[in-house]
Amino acid sequence: MIEAERSSTEKLYLEDLHPGMRFTSPTHEVDEAQMKSFAAAFDPQPFHLDEAAARASVFGGLAASGWYTAAVTMRLNVVGGLPLANGIVGLGGDLAWPAPVRSGDVLQVVNEIAEVTPSRSRPDRGTIAVHGETRNQRGEVVQRTTMKLLVPRRPV
Amino acid sequence: MIEAERSSTEKLYLEDLHPGMRFTSPTHEVDEAQMKSFAAAFDPQPFHLDEAAARASVFGGLAASGWYTAAVTMRLNVVGGLPLANGIVGLGGDLAWPAPVRSGDVLQVVNEIAEVTPSRSRPDRGTIAVHGETRNQRGEVVQRTTMKLLVPRRPV
Repeated sequence: MIEAERSSTEKLYLEDLHPGMRFTSPTHEVDEAQMKSFAAAFDPQPFHLDEAAARASVFGGLAASGWYTAAVTMRLNVVGGLPLANGIVGLGGDLAWPAPVRSGDVLQVVNEIAEVTPSRSRPDRGTIAVHGETRNQRGEVVQRTTMKLLVPRRPV
Repeated sequence: MIEAERSSTEKLYLEDLHPGMRFTSPTHEVDEAQMKSFAAAFDPQPFHLDEAAARASVFGGLAASGWYTAAVTMRLNVVGGLPLANGIVGLGGDLAWPAPVRSGDVLQVVNEIAEVTPSRSRPDRGTIAVHGETRNQRGEVVQRTTMKLLVPRRPV
């Protein structure tokens, strides 16, 4: 495991990235108003909106939409979790939500580069696979992803 | 392929679901203000916020965050794309964004049940795998997912 020691302003190109490099994001405290506002707009189900309905549900209490967790994770990556040149451009990936996110949880993302693959047809770019874990203040993993991202090579 | 012919108010339990059943959601027109507001909150990168920056990027023009597309897809599923008893409870899955989403695009989701798996340990529930395609007004697939969902059996 290579812990990345880099300034947050340095942006990385494909040739700077290697399997095992890790990046830790800033933290984000989940705000109940924002969590409910997201649910009202995009995932209007009772267990994301109403405490009593949520207690009677499989979640056992008000829980964030998994898509809200995904969105907060993206924000954390953009503001400091994954300093890629030209930004974070995702092609797809997989995700799992092993534990619920609650109001007041403090989330943080730990990313590890899993694969670096130069493009065969386009010499100016490549893809990377990144394992990401979004953890709460108790270290529990609330989201686990492997995402494939498009990354440019350093311009010559 | 079995095209589901059901009223939108009927909610389905595990025993009602079979591989090949398909469900088509209502449509949603992507609004530039909402798309940018999502990006500002969760994916603040220039190609999601600024037309000139987006033209110079790999997207070739303002494009929605993939997580916005995922969130709109979830909304479409909740309001009519996947009428499951007790709602849509996702455990995880995979997703891909094969084409960008632009302001004014009209999105619709087509879901197909891929697998139905009763729980071995919990007789009151099971899981399903659902293939989902989110398409724009030209029929282009802008998001492709396979999600694993928790579904209750009908109470006895």
